[in-house]
Amino acid sequence: MPDQDDKDPNMETKSLTSSDSQRENVPYIHKMGVPPKQNVLKEFKSTLKETFFSDDPLRPFKHQTRSKKFVLGLQALFPILDWGRSYNIKKFRGDLISGLTIASLCIPQDIGYSKLANLSPQYGLYSSFVPPLIYAFMGSSRDIAIGPVAVVSLLMGTLLRQEFDPENQPNEYLRLVFTATFFAGITQATLGVLRLGFLIDFLSHAAVVGFMGGAAITIALQQLKGFLGIPSKHFTKETDIISVMKSVFGSIHHSWNWQTIVIASSFLAFLLLTKYIGKKNKKLFWVPAIAPLISVILSTFFVYITHANKEGVAIVGHIDKRINPPSLDKIYFSGENLLKGFKIGIVAGMIALTEAVAIGRTFASMKDYQVDGNKEMVALGTMNIIGSMTSCYVATGSFSRSAVNYMAGCQTAVSNIVMSIVVLLTVKFLTPLFEYTPNAILSSIIISAVIGLIDYDAAILIWKIDKLDFVACMGAFLGVVFKSVEIGLLIAVIISFAKILLQVTRPRTAILGKIPMTSVYRNIGQYPEAIKVPGVLIVRVDSAIYFSNSNYTKERILRWLIEEEDNLKANYEPRIQFLIVEMSPVTDIDTSGIRAFEELYRSLQKRDVQLVLANPGQLVLDKLYAAGFPELIGENKIFLTVGDAVHTCAPKIAHDV
Amino acid sequence: MPDQDDKDPNMETKSLTSSDSQRENVPYIHKMGVPPKQNVLKEFKSTLKETFFSDDPLRPFKHQTRSKKFVLGLQALFPILDWGRSYNIKKFRGDLISGLTIASLCIPQDIGYSKLANLSPQYGLYSSFVPPLIYAFMGSSRDIAIGPVAVVSLLMGTLLRQEFDPENQPNEYLRLVFTATFFAGITQATLGVLRLGFLIDFLSHAAVVGFMGGAAITIALQQLKGFLGIPSKHFTKETDIISVMKSVFGSIHHSWNWQTIVIASSFLAFLLLTKYIGKKNKKLFWVPAIAPLISVILSTFFVYITHANKEGVAIVGHIDKRINPPSLDKIYFSGENLLKGFKIGIVAGMIALTEAVAIGRTFASMKDYQVDGNKEMVALGTMNIIGSMTSCYVATGSFSRSAVNYMAGCQTAVSNIVMSIVVLLTVKFLTPLFEYTPNAILSSIIISAVIGLIDYDAAILIWKIDKLDFVACMGAFLGVVFKSVEIGLLIAVIISFAKILLQVTRPRTAILGKIPMTSVYRNIGQYPEAIKVPGVLIVRVDSAIYFSNSNYTKERILRWLIEEEDNLKANYEPRIQFLIVEMSPVTDIDTSGIRAFEELYRSLQKRDVQLVLANPGQLVLDKLYAAGFPELIGENKIFLTVGDAVHTCAPKIAHDV
Repeated sequence: MPDQDDKDPNMETKSLTSSDSQRENVPYIHKMGVPPKQNVLKEFKSTLKETFFSDDPLRPFKHQTRSKKFVLGLQALFPILDWGRSYNIKKFRGDLISGLTIASLCIPQDIGYSKLANLSPQYGLYSSFVPPLIYAFMGSSRDIAIGPVAVVSLLMGTLLRQEFDPENQPNEYLRLVFTATFFAGITQATLGVLRLGFLIDFLSHAAVVGFMGGAAITIALQQLKGFLGIPSKHFTKETDIISVMKSVFGSIHHSWNWQTIVIASSFLAFLLLTKYIGKKNKKLFWVPAIAPLISVILSTFFVYITHANKEGVAIVGHIDKRINPPSLDKIYFSGENLLKGFKIGIVAGMIALTEAVAIGRTFASMKDYQVDGNKEMVALGTMNIIGSMTSCYVATGSFSRSAVNYMAGCQTAVSNIVMSIVVLLTVKFLTPLFEYTPNAILSSIIISAVIGLIDYDAAILIWKIDKLDFVACMGAFLGVVFKSVEIGLLIAVIISFAKILLQVTRPRTAILGKIPMTSVYRNIGQYPEAIKVPGVLIVRVDSAIYFSNSNYTKERILRWLIEEEDNLKANYEPRIQFLIVEMSPVTDIDTSGIRAFEELYRSLQKRDVQLVLANPGQLVLDKLYAAGFPELIGENKIFLTVGDAVHTCAPKIAHDV
Repeated sequence: MPDQDDKDPNMETKSLTSSDSQRENVPYIHKMGVPPKQNVLKEFKSTLKETFFSDDPLRPFKHQTRSKKFVLGLQALFPILDWGRSYNIKKFRGDLISGLTIASLCIPQDIGYSKLANLSPQYGLYSSFVPPLIYAFMGSSRDIAIGPVAVVSLLMGTLLRQEFDPENQPNEYLRLVFTATFFAGITQATLGVLRLGFLIDFLSHAAVVGFMGGAAITIALQQLKGFLGIPSKHFTKETDIISVMKSVFGSIHHSWNWQTIVIASSFLAFLLLTKYIGKKNKKLFWVPAIAPLISVILSTFFVYITHANKEGVAIVGHIDKRINPPSLDKIYFSGENLLKGFKIGIVAGMIALTEAVAIGRTFASMKDYQVDGNKEMVALGTMNIIGSMTSCYVATGSFSRSAVNYMAGCQTAVSNIVMSIVVLLTVKFLTPLFEYTPNAILSSIIISAVIGLIDYDAAILIWKIDKLDFVACMGAFLGVVFKSVEIGLLIAVIISFAKILLQVTRPRTAILGKIPMTSVYRNIGQYPEAIKVPGVLIVRVDSAIYFSNSNYTKERILRWLIEEEDNLKANYEPRIQFLIVEMSPVTDIDTSGIRAFEELYRSLQKRDVQLVLANPGQLVLDKLYAAGFPELIGENKIFLTVGDAVHTCAPKIAHDV
């Protein structure tokens, strides 16, 4: 009768036959698994592997000939060699349409974002030409749209301005931009090559939501300059909300330009309307995607025929027609400017990475393909290194354009190539057309773009799920809005780390009881129907026991015991004879943890209470044996399950429950 | 038949009656406990309480009258008011003997340790008078012996020397000593009052073992100066082993003094012999305890009658006879010296705290009484603050003297009072006797004392138990020996933190199988006899799922699935239909974790695999419900146990195992 073997524990009922109840006094107790001693080197190698090579990148290379290995290596570095072989005209159709769509979206955005980075418009366009091309050959995401993005542009603009004034020292400023871009690329590629990609996981989702929201508001505030037509000299250089508001309302009587405001607000209304349409009807996703370009064309035409630029409506002006000039010679490779660029590059590179990897993962999970984080970092790093030598600043994946790319039906990274070519043609032939484009329209486009970065729903969900996460989220948000981008980032990182430390300092513990009609023991807080076993206290420790929490854990367990004994005494009930520690969630223990258990054992001995362990994991058991702990408390005090432990320790008592 | 209710799951055997096997198709599945929504404020308060008030310090104050509360408050601040009421002559006998024993041990040690801190001998004695007195009134440990200790003396000597030269700027140096002591006390008391005592838990046991061992070697090396009779001007100011060795062997031909070496080595041999005797026969513990004083008396007498000091044997010389002069006016309360003293004080205060708390805990667990960490910090802080105003430098609990105190049968902190009075009398009346004491004998005493700090056995045990802990231990050890005390400390802290971060970044996962003849599912790595259920993959995640590991966890689970499917395909076995995630060890989850699970769910859907959760804890379940996850995957996909999940998902399959 093989089908009775695995009968569920929950099946015991009062109608068991007497033959069953006889066997109760000799229950089958499965022996604890004491695994063979692990090899030190093997253990160390396995830790290293899980830390740095958790995705097993060399797996396909196993058992292959040398030439095959070379081909596989090339394919690993340039995924295009892999997917390119199955590329066909049908896929190209999708890529062509999506490429054209994101190109129409990126051109006005690029011009606007370069202003955020205090750069001339052509640098934004340059950065939408070279980096996407490189990425298309090396990247593994199929949906990401590469180019300059708002947050990184703002971050670079803020940090770089602290070193050089973009108006009075334009040359030094530009050189520092390329230096920072170079080191951003180096940072990204290095993290990928050293397989340290997991470092970006330390910026929690909540912190990123808060940071992005704050950055969006800061960027929108900066756009008030263009939106209201306030001249640069009357506008603050600070980015915090208070300085900006002061500067906006301080200039209300002499600097606001009503023609600009009319143009900006009417087109902003148009853009928001198209956004709304696109949101309501997913099939019309292309309406908000091409709306910015239409706005640019209409407003440029309008300014050109009305000569509104003579009325104080600021325009983009002349854009350099050259294609990306080389800029390797502009990078600072020595002196203190190297150090400045290096620092800014690290910060910008990490933020750009966080954004790109988040986008890559999101779309990969929507289409169920794998994005290799470390390989992706090498691709992004390489594209920024080459970018820094061809007059680009830091490019990364854009949230808004990637979403449009996905909805427009992109199939592969070829859509980035299409976009890149369109941008190239624009730089070469169409820049004169942008001369009369009003700055106000760019501000409207940026405002309508960054609004999407404020993720209310995510913030509300975070509040619902985890209050501490919400604190991290709001800390980052308020830090960015009220102080600066760096401070917000710093707050986000600090709170994220503090959360980890709190987690490992104060593990949760729970008192377990027996779920009626089963032999399962669960938290009596969660299952009020669970029944305590008289004379036995069952405590579950919900964390690895490390130096950071070993003393707390020991003291908490003793406190549970003391409280329980006080209660029992008050009710004249039998005293506790056994303390069973359910070790299932104790995934690891270190020397401090074992010392704490030894101290616990001694304290319990003084109180005449037996210490019993239930279900320690392999690793914990290994270490307990290495420390001689089972010999100390008695090897027969370690059980496979709490049920076994209760049965053996207190068979008489257990039956009465 | 109440005794059948809780029949163990392991009891199922093949001889079940047919009435039992009928019930198998409708097994009793206990409903998952969905706890009522927790109040935000309550949750927050409970986190706060466990973090800062985990020991529930206000518990005794509940339901008491006002005057009673006042008395309890006084007793909490001055435990002597509590235990003093039951003090009797029998206890005093124990305290008197142990007090006299530790006094005889501390006097020569104090004189030697003051040299380590570059101070005149009387400051060591001062620090054995006031602080132990204060501690006796405020401390809660019964066994600790308070006074200057080797490691803190060395640390202060090293750090302070970097600011002022003790020989050329003795006044500034002394003022900075008191300033640092003051802030060490402030640091300790503040940590106690703010209930941040758990911060010292972040220095792991392994790191402390390594640090202490390294400090012991460094201190012993410093003693070579006195041991070999090398004049200060020929001895290095550095503490690393290479500088010291160079300086020792560089001076071999002109600075070594053979008379000094003879005295020092013969008494060192005597001291080590008595140590050995004390170790072999625990009853003779007093032999090594009084040996230092005997050595001092003998060697002083010898030098006095032979006039060896004229032969180049350095002697202690004149010791100031005054009792602790006030030093409040010497503390720097402004200027940059305040900052210097503040920094050194924090480091010295934390190290002193670590040592005192470790001692307090060790002896408390040996006699099974509670030491309140935070209250203890307030006591230690107060004693150092008052000490800094009465010409003392940082005092704390001494490992060696506390052990002697314990073995000599101390009962309460009164032994510290006895010691303190003996030291007072010594300062007042006996200091002239120490004038001819050779420095060499002090070096021998210190060497024989610090040897005990090198804990080989602990290091070997750490190696056996946890390799990463051993790395932390050796890092701290080598840092101290080859570089400096601060560097060693820094390495210890960094490795300790890195370990925590590694833990939360790469949680372990395991594939579970069914243990034969039970319905228990365990790691097939630990229990090779466990059997996989066909068509079902059961993965256990061994950690809370947080932002720092959510992506890894998701990818690791998917990798398990892919590997398993590859294997199955190769063997033409049925494909996986259900992925059960055993959540018992998942003690918490945050928004990133839930997002990862949502992505996992979507990826699994693409592969036509059902996601099933087993036994999520209360907290995790709360958050999953808040995020609407159960509705996403289906509320009937969450089970109390893995057994239940397997039964419901794959009843047919499960029966065949």
